[in-house]
Amino acid sequence: MTRKVNIAVIGTGRMGSVHVANLVRQIPEANLSAICDIRLEVAQAVANDLGIQRVVRDYHELLADPSIEAVLIATNTNTHAMVIKDAALAGKHIFCEKPLALELKDIDDALAVVNQSKVKLQVGFNRRFDKSFQRVHQIVTSGEIGKPCILHITSRDPESPTTEYLRTSGGMFLDMTIHDFDMIRFQVGEVEEIYAIGNVLLTPEIQEFGDLDTTLVSIKFTNGAIGTIDNSRQAVYGYDQRLEVLCTDGVAIANNEVETTIYKGDRGGFHSASLPHFFMQRYAPCYVEEVRQFVKCVRDDKPTPINGHDGRMAVVLGEAAWKSVREKRPVKISEFDQA
Amino acid sequence: MTRKVNIAVIGTGRMGSVHVANLVRQIPEANLSAICDIRLEVAQAVANDLGIQRVVRDYHELLADPSIEAVLIATNTNTHAMVIKDAALAGKHIFCEKPLALELKDIDDALAVVNQSKVKLQVGFNRRFDKSFQRVHQIVTSGEIGKPCILHITSRDPESPTTEYLRTSGGMFLDMTIHDFDMIRFQVGEVEEIYAIGNVLLTPEIQEFGDLDTTLVSIKFTNGAIGTIDNSRQAVYGYDQRLEVLCTDGVAIANNEVETTIYKGDRGGFHSASLPHFFMQRYAPCYVEEVRQFVKCVRDDKPTPINGHDGRMAVVLGEAAWKSVREKRPVKISEFDQA
Amino acid sequence: MTRKVNIAVIGTGRMGSVHVANLVRQIPEANLSAICDIRLEVAQAVANDLGIQRVVRDYHELLADPSIEAVLIATNTNTHAMVIKDAALAGKHIFCEKPLALELKDIDDALAVVNQSKVKLQVGFNRRFDKSFQRVHQIVTSGEIGKPCILHITSRDPESPTTEYLRTSGGMFLDMTIHDFDMIRFQVGEVEEIYAIGNVLLTPEIQEFGDLDTTLVSIKFTNGAIGTIDNSRQAVYGYDQRLEVLCTDGVAIANNEVETTIYKGDRGGFHSASLPHFFMQRYAPCYVEEVRQFVKCVRDDKPTPINGHDGRMAVVLGEAAWKSVREKRPVKISEFDQA
Amino acid sequence: MTRKVNIAVIGTGRMGSVHVANLVRQIPEANLSAICDIRLEVAQAVANDLGIQRVVRDYHELLADPSIEAVLIATNTNTHAMVIKDAALAGKHIFCEKPLALELKDIDDALAVVNQSKVKLQVGFNRRFDKSFQRVHQIVTSGEIGKPCILHITSRDPESPTTEYLRTSGGMFLDMTIHDFDMIRFQVGEVEEIYAIGNVLLTPEIQEFGDLDTTLVSIKFTNGAIGTIDNSRQAVYGYDQRLEVLCTDGVAIANNEVETTIYKGDRGGFHSASLPHFFMQRYAPCYVEEVRQFVKCVRDDKPTPINGHDGRMAVVLGEAAWKSVREKRPVKISEFDQA
Repeated sequence: MTRKVNIAVIGTGRMGSVHVANLVRQIPEANLSAICDIRLEVAQAVANDLGIQRVVRDYHELLADPSIEAVLIATNTNTHAMVIKDAALAGKHIFCEKPLALELKDIDDALAVVNQSKVKLQVGFNRRFDKSFQRVHQIVTSGEIGKPCILHITSRDPESPTTEYLRTSGGMFLDMTIHDFDMIRFQVGEVEEIYAIGNVLLTPEIQEFGDLDTTLVSIKFTNGAIGTIDNSRQAVYGYDQRLEVLCTDGVAIANNEVETTIYKGDRGGFHSASLPHFFMQRYAPCYVEEVRQFVKCVRDDKPTPINGHDGRMAVVLGEAAWKSVREKRPVKISEFDQA
Repeated sequence: MTRKVNIAVIGTGRMGSVHVANLVRQIPEANLSAICDIRLEVAQAVANDLGIQRVVRDYHELLADPSIEAVLIATNTNTHAMVIKDAALAGKHIFCEKPLALELKDIDDALAVVNQSKVKLQVGFNRRFDKSFQRVHQIVTSGEIGKPCILHITSRDPESPTTEYLRTSGGMFLDMTIHDFDMIRFQVGEVEEIYAIGNVLLTPEIQEFGDLDTTLVSIKFTNGAIGTIDNSRQAVYGYDQRLEVLCTDGVAIANNEVETTIYKGDRGGFHSASLPHFFMQRYAPCYVEEVRQFVKCVRDDKPTPINGHDGRMAVVLGEAAWKSVREKRPVKISEFDQA
Repeated sequence: MTRKVNIAVIGTGRMGSVHVANLVRQIPEANLSAICDIRLEVAQAVANDLGIQRVVRDYHELLADPSIEAVLIATNTNTHAMVIKDAALAGKHIFCEKPLALELKDIDDALAVVNQSKVKLQVGFNRRFDKSFQRVHQIVTSGEIGKPCILHITSRDPESPTTEYLRTSGGMFLDMTIHDFDMIRFQVGEVEEIYAIGNVLLTPEIQEFGDLDTTLVSIKFTNGAIGTIDNSRQAVYGYDQRLEVLCTDGVAIANNEVETTIYKGDRGGFHSASLPHFFMQRYAPCYVEEVRQFVKCVRDDKPTPINGHDGRMAVVLGEAAWKSVREKRPVKISEFDQA
Repeated sequence: MTRKVNIAVIGTGRMGSVHVANLVRQIPEANLSAICDIRLEVAQAVANDLGIQRVVRDYHELLADPSIEAVLIATNTNTHAMVIKDAALAGKHIFCEKPLALELKDIDDALAVVNQSKVKLQVGFNRRFDKSFQRVHQIVTSGEIGKPCILHITSRDPESPTTEYLRTSGGMFLDMTIHDFDMIRFQVGEVEEIYAIGNVLLTPEIQEFGDLDTTLVSIKFTNGAIGTIDNSRQAVYGYDQRLEVLCTDGVAIANNEVETTIYKGDRGGFHSASLPHFFMQRYAPCYVEEVRQFVKCVRDDKPTPINGHDGRMAVVLGEAAWKSVREKRPVKISEFDQA
């Protein structure tokens, strides 16, 4: 039998507690050594539910434990870069929730330490592990339907988060579109230039801090393909997650998943189920698979499927989109080259 | 340029007037010489609408005209056999609406005259000309998905006809299922035995004359396949016309056509259009194509695609279904062999 | 916090090991006390995988343990009745895999003991817990689309089991259709009469012991509705599980689930995924939910959702189908009334 | 009975001959008085096919005939403005194929004469008459799903026209996107600004004259909504025509129509038909309906549903798209205000 990877989870809020449960129940390749949260009572509650023995408040304690090989970071975004640097210096392999940070400078600092420390880093772009998006990737990259021409992503939340949350979220492009920015690189490749437009059509109060709730991004890829990302904070019919790539000899379309397969017919026509309500439900298997892949990469000493560069590029594209909106012009990605 | 076939239409009621309009507007291979109805004013109104010159009350007048090569019979069912015999004796090729008659004896008499007269006869089983059902036929008979195992037809009207109409219709199996009886022979082949059940769940008043409004027929085909036909007089969501053939190496499924391709999503889920309301709308192209094929067969002296035997067999299956219901037992088709 | 129910699993083969894993990982309402298999090494392997402490060979040992409240029986079918009786006499609540037995006499004996012992019994008709079939049930029983008229179940396996398995399986109607017999009662109600036909079109070797691989059952329900069940051992495109109930004012249709939501378009049209391959994959959530419901019924002292009568009736319908095929006639369910 | 409108068709090439046939066979509200083509033999062939009496070479002859009330102009695009002016001066009502002209100045000249002459003008944006797009329009404008937020049009041809054709076509935005530019105004309203990108990924030879074969247009509407148009000259799976409008309380999606409703399942999954191949087939009913509506407007003296301003605005948007591509910047529609 192959050995299990000792891993600890830092941050046991909404996403962190999902990862904890998955590690306990569905990832036999890992051994969850400990969990950690500065709100110790939050971590303790999670531990009680799942029968976890070791719970700490200060993550440095875990970094000092030589039996722990890897950490999963699910703290607040504004602490990601700091924890990554500390973990890397302690020689731990790192799985970090997206985004790596909201400021490129912080990301560059953290990645420099990761590179020097030669630890593995994987960023939590869970959607790459969705079976339908993986099938599109396989069809498109195999060349079986020719070369990519047009990509279109529809990615709409069922309802807007609270204004409180939005205020520190990085705004539409860094909080929500960032997933799609990673997805377009996964499906079609590197981006040359983007142009973004948007408006506030749903929640007027977010205008106060300059956010948007309805946006479109036009993309030129370096391989000549073009594309769009269509985002909204409010699709009342459910969490709308579609993806399509037109190629020279065909098309690959990932439609939405549905809650049930029922059609009800009556005098008014046919009625079918709304979409799964939100990401926790829609992408549940991806949260398991991304961590399982990370654990296997650590165990087998292989490169992680989504590395620091990928994490950085998604933020670059988000920054470029904000710059495009503010300066009302197309923005080249080369404007964000690493110094 | 190829010559046009001179044809006359006998009976210009609901179906007859559709055929008249199709012959005038959409079947350039034919020349509509005259139309006829014992209710002369009905025929005259149709003629006025479409600019038809010759209108007669008595069909014998048309049969006596040597320039007319073929007749299309769309009179009341109880006159079909008589008109067929007269037309055949006059040497006219015949397209006759289904069913040939409600009594097998009348059919056998008429077919005997047709055979002696060596005229062509085509029966109006229009659904064989539907592009989707033809594609199923092509898939199944090509053998590309192996041999047929299970057939299932769903064939439901949107709403029940009047009790007046039903009283003389021949009942569910000879009025409605008869189309499906022809379709199962088209798709899978000859029938060995059938068992039918049914009930009155929609229109209690039809119990008076022993009719049913909800029925199921189980079929054993001579090639070993089995199947069912599912009929209802009332599918409030529209005219439900589906067909499926499971074969040893695959399945061919013909789904319903829809009125529009719209999906509306709201908080209650997704909503799509009801089905085309009824046969005139759903099978409109088939009414054109069946007559066009008949006209071409006459012009090119080829066998018709649906002949007298086919017309007889559909009625045999209908009679067998009624016998099965009345005697509460499976009925062999061999019980109806022609003397 | 509510108390956990102490449960033991008897039989840790294919289905039993699934239940064991579900109890450990996904049913926090239960405490899995022990597992048991006469092949002790099989049980031990399962226990090792999942960190289960107590493993026994003889189920009587578990029945003698007063701390165990309930047992889940997943042994060979031919031992179900015996284990049920023993468990009932020991005062344990019982979840038993379907079918209760292949002989009605054995079922009646076992149910008599269960009734006397006043323990709860639930039968493993997992499909009742499928969210789509539950939604159909909800639509149909709510009356929102009127009264049921026609039910149609399509239930086809992707590939035939081994001849070895089939030889002792009870045959098509007791091994495969039995699930559908339970489903029709769940959706529409009690059955008055059935008529069954079938053939061997896929695996000729099963003719030796009189089994069928392609079958159709016609059903008359006591409430006047009618229906069909369409079964095949080989649907090469995947595990085909559809259900439809036509009612007086509408229809409820449960379509198949799909493996991915991808459509690939090319010069040959559109191509989409096959169906989930088989029941373990298709009904995975149902295996969890049925046991969770059972555990809650034990904990809260409520009636189980699928009781001994339900388990008996599914076998009665299977026996009736075999009788119908053998005697080539419709068979009334009243012929099987309990003495 | 209501009177028929006397109409003549000028230009009997591909589109013109379709309109002629439709007027003869399917638009009883009109009386087709004459047809005209400078290639007299072309017009004569059409006339022979359809039994039309009057055929002329010079359209001025028809304009001089006081019995003709309206003309349908289907000549080459570069002659539209001239024929419109002549017809307007002669007091004829005008149906003109799109685009009115490729140069805004020509359009403005022609519209000035039309306005002075007080004749009716309808432009041939046939897609507005598609039943699915009309249903979207009805849903969106009714307000039943709130206010529009994001529009997305997918409009892809199955295969590229000849380079010969493209050379004088006005290029992608004026030849192909022009239909979508009209559609976005129909669905969501007036445009404030557009940004267009594109590439040559399919037919390198068109780079010679600066055309594109793969394009995306980003749109800001004056009502705050945003949108995209996605065009390609080559969708090998068929003529891809989809439309979607996300609103604050729902979404309206028009999917593609299909050639047949068949699903074939085999070991490789499910396979369905490609899309109708091209516009003549896909939009056949629209070509009838647009002319029928025009004829009724003339007959009943009502405003036409698509007027000169609509025809001009579609060209303005096409010009703006070209300007955006050439100047690599967003372009305001106000830059094209009529002098």
